[in-house]
Amino acid sequence: MTSATLELAKDLISRPSVTPEDAGCQEMMIERLTAMGFTIERLPFEEVTNFWARRGTEGPLFCFAGHTDVVPTGPVERWSHPPFEPVIQDGYLCGRGAADMKGSIAAFMTALERFIDHHPDHNGSIALLITSDEEGPFINGTTRVIDHLEARNEKIDWCIVGEPSSTAKVGDIIKNGRRGSLSGKLHVNGIQGHVAYPHLVRNPIHEAAPALAELAAKEWDKGNDFFPPTSFQISNIHAGTGATNVVPGQIEVDFNFRFSTESTAEGLKAQVQTILEQHNLDWSIEWTLSGNPFLTAEGELVNAAQQAIKAITGYDTELSTSGGTSDGRFIAPTGAQVVELGPVNATIHKVDERVSVKDLDTLSDMYENIMARLLTE
Amino acid sequence: MTSATLELAKDLISRPSVTPEDAGCQEMMIERLTAMGFTIERLPFEEVTNFWARRGTEGPLFCFAGHTDVVPTGPVERWSHPPFEPVIQDGYLCGRGAADMKGSIAAFMTALERFIDHHPDHNGSIALLITSDEEGPFINGTTRVIDHLEARNEKIDWCIVGEPSSTAKVGDIIKNGRRGSLSGKLHVNGIQGHVAYPHLVRNPIHEAAPALAELAAKEWDKGNDFFPPTSFQISNIHAGTGATNVVPGQIEVDFNFRFSTESTAEGLKAQVQTILEQHNLDWSIEWTLSGNPFLTAEGELVNAAQQAIKAITGYDTELSTSGGTSDGRFIAPTGAQVVELGPVNATIHKVDERVSVKDLDTLSDMYENIMARLLTE
Repeated sequence: MTSATLELAKDLISRPSVTPEDAGCQEMMIERLTAMGFTIERLPFEEVTNFWARRGTEGPLFCFAGHTDVVPTGPVERWSHPPFEPVIQDGYLCGRGAADMKGSIAAFMTALERFIDHHPDHNGSIALLITSDEEGPFINGTTRVIDHLEARNEKIDWCIVGEPSSTAKVGDIIKNGRRGSLSGKLHVNGIQGHVAYPHLVRNPIHEAAPALAELAAKEWDKGNDFFPPTSFQISNIHAGTGATNVVPGQIEVDFNFRFSTESTAEGLKAQVQTILEQHNLDWSIEWTLSGNPFLTAEGELVNAAQQAIKAITGYDTELSTSGGTSDGRFIAPTGAQVVELGPVNATIHKVDERVSVKDLDTLSDMYENIMARLLTE
Repeated sequence: MTSATLELAKDLISRPSVTPEDAGCQEMMIERLTAMGFTIERLPFEEVTNFWARRGTEGPLFCFAGHTDVVPTGPVERWSHPPFEPVIQDGYLCGRGAADMKGSIAAFMTALERFIDHHPDHNGSIALLITSDEEGPFINGTTRVIDHLEARNEKIDWCIVGEPSSTAKVGDIIKNGRRGSLSGKLHVNGIQGHVAYPHLVRNPIHEAAPALAELAAKEWDKGNDFFPPTSFQISNIHAGTGATNVVPGQIEVDFNFRFSTESTAEGLKAQVQTILEQHNLDWSIEWTLSGNPFLTAEGELVNAAQQAIKAITGYDTELSTSGGTSDGRFIAPTGAQVVELGPVNATIHKVDERVSVKDLDTLSDMYENIMARLLTE
């Protein structure tokens, strides 16, 4: 059981590139891309390794976006095999990053090699945007590279992000958007005192509770054809001195919105603030907008991906916007069509992460087929 | 500026008797009580020092209850003087325990010495119930001594607890009862998960919030002539893994009732449980009943105290049941009339605790006058 994609994936996994380390993955890619005729632009920012590679100067510009970094292994002794020593078992390639997303990178590289071999004079241009900071603070990775491209008005038309989008079989789901993520750290102030003297205290837990109940019960929007309804979740709540006879002076609440294109960050903030005011709270919030929602509802890229998956596997793929954030949030705002397509995500971020060896070849075929539809017809 | 009461209070303060330490206070008292004709019964339990002293065998039995232990000093450098080195400043005796309650003990001892000197053949009996565990876990202190007395059917008729009941001037308030205290540690269980997948979680914060809001808003009773309405306060609330993208699996809430004689512990428990059930929570509660409410609405002791204060100071004292718990809660259930009368409580448990030197003598006069009214007429 061997293939060019498998061999490349094994090479990548054997490099322990925990965020923000790249461990030589990108230089190895650059060497092969240079041989394929790509022009390379290394774009390190702080401790993060990034590069931009482009083949061709004309539009439209097709791009593959991905990351060489992986999440930490967790306790190595819980792994069946050392996480950075790739092994094949029962038809699966095992190791940290196998599914997220060194397998996708390998599949894209081999797809490129075949496609360029067959179509050295393809239409438009092909690019790769590769970072070693997708699993980390995502400050010096994709967003900085996009800023760099925007500054010279270099626009991506179609972008495939290699995130593991599939659930049961490779290609069964592609993500054509993601919800926005808006977080808040709420403080509600009261007046501390002894529980035996209730007339001297203002209990911030008591005052916050009905407001939190209202926030938790509120329907923010109904979602739409592409997005589930906006959801609100409190992740942390803390108040109290530890003493059971003291009413605390403050409560702290972390919450997060995953929001659809039916809502906006500013609109959600305003509604939260209105509810807090209506409850007469002494409050403050630190807001963090991790990303606005984005959506590629339809267009050449979605069509090409759907048709390619159907042609390779025979089944229909499903469009989805569920799940966590991805670097697509930084690329979509430039006007690019963005789709995430990658292997089955059942084991990502877990011990014994793995990917089907057969799926790697299928994924490579899909990527090649998509390029053929977009850049040769 | 000196008096027998002041000298004795200084002696007591100079002994660093932080709970459960007694630091020789009780042996010093015992020596003087023995000289007054008391029969002493030392009743140590575990690490706690207690004694029961009685003069006389007949009824009725008048008792002074108090504690030789004090709360910790906190940062010594924040005190104007070393907390266990009593000093007089601006007419105040300063030091840990000056007001709570070594001043009261000294006042009672000197009151006794004068009273017995004048009335060696007083009616009934006089007793002291002294512990070194009033400020601590109150497991091996007054409650154990009361159990010991109950076992042989020795009943206190009238009890003055020397807790600092006064607010603006000594004797302006006496406590003729205390609210009950019922605490609960509530756990509400949910299902942990990622904030991005709200359909897979049950957020215990969201589920608990409306129930907590209802508990915080509820009127439990309206109080009565002697008690303010029962109050409910949440002191601590905690949920969350620390991560802002994880919905926690459980929330923990500490709450406390201070309850009037219009409610019962069992009734409050039942009402809380009903509310939790109505909100369909997966919940459990560990209950702790620190004390049932008690009340000496009227009777010889309240009358004697009111008249004595009026005779000594010229003003009318106010009856109150507010404030925290005291050892009176262990004595009242035996059927005793119980009143708390002691110095001004403005500085208790704080740095630079102090008591007016003049008030110590006034307090001693009050105690003597009360005994005269109850045991000589």
